[in-house]
Amino acid sequence: MKLYDTPLAPNPRRVRWFMAEKGIEDIEIVRMNLMEGTHKTPDYIARTGLPVVPALELDDGTTIAESLAICRYLESRYPEPNLFGRTPEETAQIEMWTRRAELLVATPFMHAVRHLHPAMAALEQQNPEIGAYSRDQALRALKVLDRRLAESTWLAADRLTIADIVGFIGIDFTRMLKLVIPEELTHLHRWAAAMRERPAAKVAM
Amino acid sequence: MKLYDTPLAPNPRRVRWFMAEKGIEDIEIVRMNLMEGTHKTPDYIARTGLPVVPALELDDGTTIAESLAICRYLESRYPEPNLFGRTPEETAQIEMWTRRAELLVATPFMHAVRHLHPAMAALEQQNPEIGAYSRDQALRALKVLDRRLAESTWLAADRLTIADIVGFIGIDFTRMLKLVIPEELTHLHRWAAAMRERPAAKVAM
Repeated sequence: MKLYDTPLAPNPRRVRWFMAEKGIEDIEIVRMNLMEGTHKTPDYIARTGLPVVPALELDDGTTIAESLAICRYLESRYPEPNLFGRTPEETAQIEMWTRRAELLVATPFMHAVRHLHPAMAALEQQNPEIGAYSRDQALRALKVLDRRLAESTWLAADRLTIADIVGFIGIDFTRMLKLVIPEELTHLHRWAAAMRERPAAKVAM
Repeated sequence: MKLYDTPLAPNPRRVRWFMAEKGIEDIEIVRMNLMEGTHKTPDYIARTGLPVVPALELDDGTTIAESLAICRYLESRYPEPNLFGRTPEETAQIEMWTRRAELLVATPFMHAVRHLHPAMAALEQQNPEIGAYSRDQALRALKVLDRRLAESTWLAADRLTIADIVGFIGIDFTRMLKLVIPEELTHLHRWAAAMRERPAAKVAM
């Protein structure tokens, strides 16, 4: 298998973090350069259908794009430690919290970065109003994660799962946006500190 | 099991359509009324964590929210016909296309309805600029689905899957937005017509 990867972008970072938690080291990494457009060549798009990174090329030549589809596939090939759930009930809770972390926090913060961050001005037609709206939505939703983390050490199960990886990479957009996570969200701060301490955090910067 | 359901909203519709494709008829349906706020009672929120519909209450009392988490759980209990994939490779392709249909088309159209449709003015603080931006993004992404449907009868596999359900309910927002799907997207039109002919389409209006 080959992983088409790129530094800095959040979706490739999910896959790198996931692989680091599992200790996966035997997949060939192909480094893409988004600024140089190596993800926009006809050959690459013929594989993935869209100019997106990350993508995982299987040994039979088929390609999987979309970070969460890649991670779930890797879970089938490298089952331990389990990050997607051991039973249908646990899998459902993990998917529920992964989606909440993504849809309520990570995606709106990503839109905020696209529309507000100076480094994105070259890549996107920026609209500061959309940026501010998205940022405020994500900031409000941090309370949802904090409430959950008041009752649970990790977001979705009794251990770190894919939900924590998606959630942490989502709230880490606050650094690019120069936002401070409100102090009163003490459970979120405790959890974020635990995430930063993971060995995977160093690999998946 | 009990399904907390409500008519008209798109996420409950995904679950109803999914259940209809599988012929699931032995789950108790609890009809919620969003206008009357039955999803905002302390008792309901204690179960789901958030004022959201749909939600599936299991026999042990735990509750699963999020349409796709509910559908994947139901797949484990009612395996046929298979709608999430039979092998890890197929599951990955289906998740990839489900995410593309959701993130590129369904979610921006949903934001467009929230910010542009007169019926939403009572529920949302509307911003027409965000509405128009989201609508135009989703309209552009219809080409991605059309290109895929030029090479495949269904979005993700050799049969209808959850990706088609999410995609069709996504493009069906065009009715609320009074948009016409461009005529040149002939593959998308062919597929949408096939979706409208499913018996499940009648159940899941």
